[in-house]
Amino acid sequence: MSNATPSSGPDEFELISRLKAKLPTGDSVVIGVGDDCAVIDAGVPGQWQLHKTDAVVEGIHFTKDADPQQIGHKALGRALSDIAAMAGTPRWATVTLGLPDGFDAETVESIYDGMAALAKRHEVSLVGGETVANPERLFIGVSLVGEVASDKCILRSGASVGDGVWVTGELGGSIAGHHLEFTPRLAEARWLAAHHQPSAMIDLSDGLAGDLCHLLVEANAGAELLESALQIRREARLRARESEAAKPPLLAALTDGEDYELCFTLGQGRAVMLLDQFKQEFPGTPLSCVGKIVERPGLKIRQKSGIREISTRGYVHFQ
Amino acid sequence: MSNATPSSGPDEFELISRLKAKLPTGDSVVIGVGDDCAVIDAGVPGQWQLHKTDAVVEGIHFTKDADPQQIGHKALGRALSDIAAMAGTPRWATVTLGLPDGFDAETVESIYDGMAALAKRHEVSLVGGETVANPERLFIGVSLVGEVASDKCILRSGASVGDGVWVTGELGGSIAGHHLEFTPRLAEARWLAAHHQPSAMIDLSDGLAGDLCHLLVEANAGAELLESALQIRREARLRARESEAAKPPLLAALTDGEDYELCFTLGQGRAVMLLDQFKQEFPGTPLSCVGKIVERPGLKIRQKSGIREISTRGYVHFQ
Repeated sequence: MSNATPSSGPDEFELISRLKAKLPTGDSVVIGVGDDCAVIDAGVPGQWQLHKTDAVVEGIHFTKDADPQQIGHKALGRALSDIAAMAGTPRWATVTLGLPDGFDAETVESIYDGMAALAKRHEVSLVGGETVANPERLFIGVSLVGEVASDKCILRSGASVGDGVWVTGELGGSIAGHHLEFTPRLAEARWLAAHHQPSAMIDLSDGLAGDLCHLLVEANAGAELLESALQIRREARLRARESEAAKPPLLAALTDGEDYELCFTLGQGRAVMLLDQFKQEFPGTPLSCVGKIVERPGLKIRQKSGIREISTRGYVHFQ
Repeated sequence: MSNATPSSGPDEFELISRLKAKLPTGDSVVIGVGDDCAVIDAGVPGQWQLHKTDAVVEGIHFTKDADPQQIGHKALGRALSDIAAMAGTPRWATVTLGLPDGFDAETVESIYDGMAALAKRHEVSLVGGETVANPERLFIGVSLVGEVASDKCILRSGASVGDGVWVTGELGGSIAGHHLEFTPRLAEARWLAAHHQPSAMIDLSDGLAGDLCHLLVEANAGAELLESALQIRREARLRARESEAAKPPLLAALTDGEDYELCFTLGQGRAVMLLDQFKQEFPGTPLSCVGKIVERPGLKIRQKSGIREISTRGYVHFQ
């Protein structure tokens, strides 16, 4: 069960909804399981809290020889990206390290250095942590509490037929390095909420095809993407050129996952103004309108050769 | 690094203080790393939030054949016990499950059933969770956010020379079953804070000898315990009788760990009134004054045969 489960098969979805029905919640829970973060009314007037937990595991989310500072960066960055998806401000983080046999103090310190540097940049307080043994592999759990003005919180639900589908940054080929170095789109998301109030938003962790599907299910609608509008990362093209076994670049952009970009929907009339203002505000962050919400459920892509149905199943990390 | 590190060797303590110095925090952090929970001023007038993360791991905190509902109970119960240690009220929990290869949906559901039952009893909302792969063993991380009136929060610091040392429940032999079934002392702790305002408090997870030491370090003082006042659990006596390899009952009571009871300090004048009122309020919970805070650092125990120094190193779970 999950706020944003990676690797969810049909059985897991069934299990999540069964569990969801019996998990206790109270009046203070605005949204429990089912969005990027849980949304809590903790008693601060005009504000909600965002609660998120996430974990990265050696051999699943990073390799044994990955740079410990980058591992720390990724562990915290993923949770920050989920706070961004709701246009929130991250505030307090706690960490659980599951340490394999023979793990040394210097590496622990480097992992924390990576987390601390990212935390500092986003004014997040690292307020606690636990160390336990997990003999075979490194396991890092991060819990994050953030804040958002209750009238600025963007949910996965809310997209309407006719809305444009927007994506920040580039997609695909994240495994070549981006997945360890990405910048969570916190500033962009808050600016979007303040100036353009997207109708729905999610962060791209499992691939555009899979993650957009969550917005479509909530809207009971479909989407049509435009191949030529997708910003595909150079590494995705390179990998496709170098190996016949690699995914074609378009498939990589749709299903690789670990982009940690924002995907949001917005009424069509605002496109030009948004593009213009965003470019001024965030000159380093690409922004593209990649398609639109349509009535008929399912995900389609418009290519030179015609319109094709695409699978909505996201990427299952790099297992 | 840890709010309440189990299995902390001298190296780890050194690492914790090195890390603590460089972790970013802000004005909203009343207490970061170093108490049972982090204490946060989240903007609710007169209230603080308590943030806690904790994890249990197969083969370390429970065996492979343990009842999944009890595993879920323990995973959440440990974090609840840390909220109790600060006299707080637990509110919102998020869960990360690291699932080993071949793990089935029914077992996941049973783990959540165990957590949900305990959460319901304490009016805790289960608001989110993640599932990741942890191929060799089950790993459960629980993050909990609680609340406490800012004038009722009891810290590890605050004990004074002359204060009595008090313990709820019985100690030792937890591994025989208590560690999977314990009741976090939330109601008792809140009642104590409301009516007797203990000078310092901690929950007993690593054994009285080790955990009391945290209060003594904060107070720059020592303690003298009275052997005859310690309530030793029947299972600790039985185990000692059945096997020569088992710890003597006194040692078990001091160092077994996983008691999940409260240890607190209180000015001596209030002892009779406290005992009387507590017995009326909580007839099912034993309460004992087991010693007193003394000026000279170190932990001593008064036995029939005289006074002996005891090691302050707590139990390292049942590894």
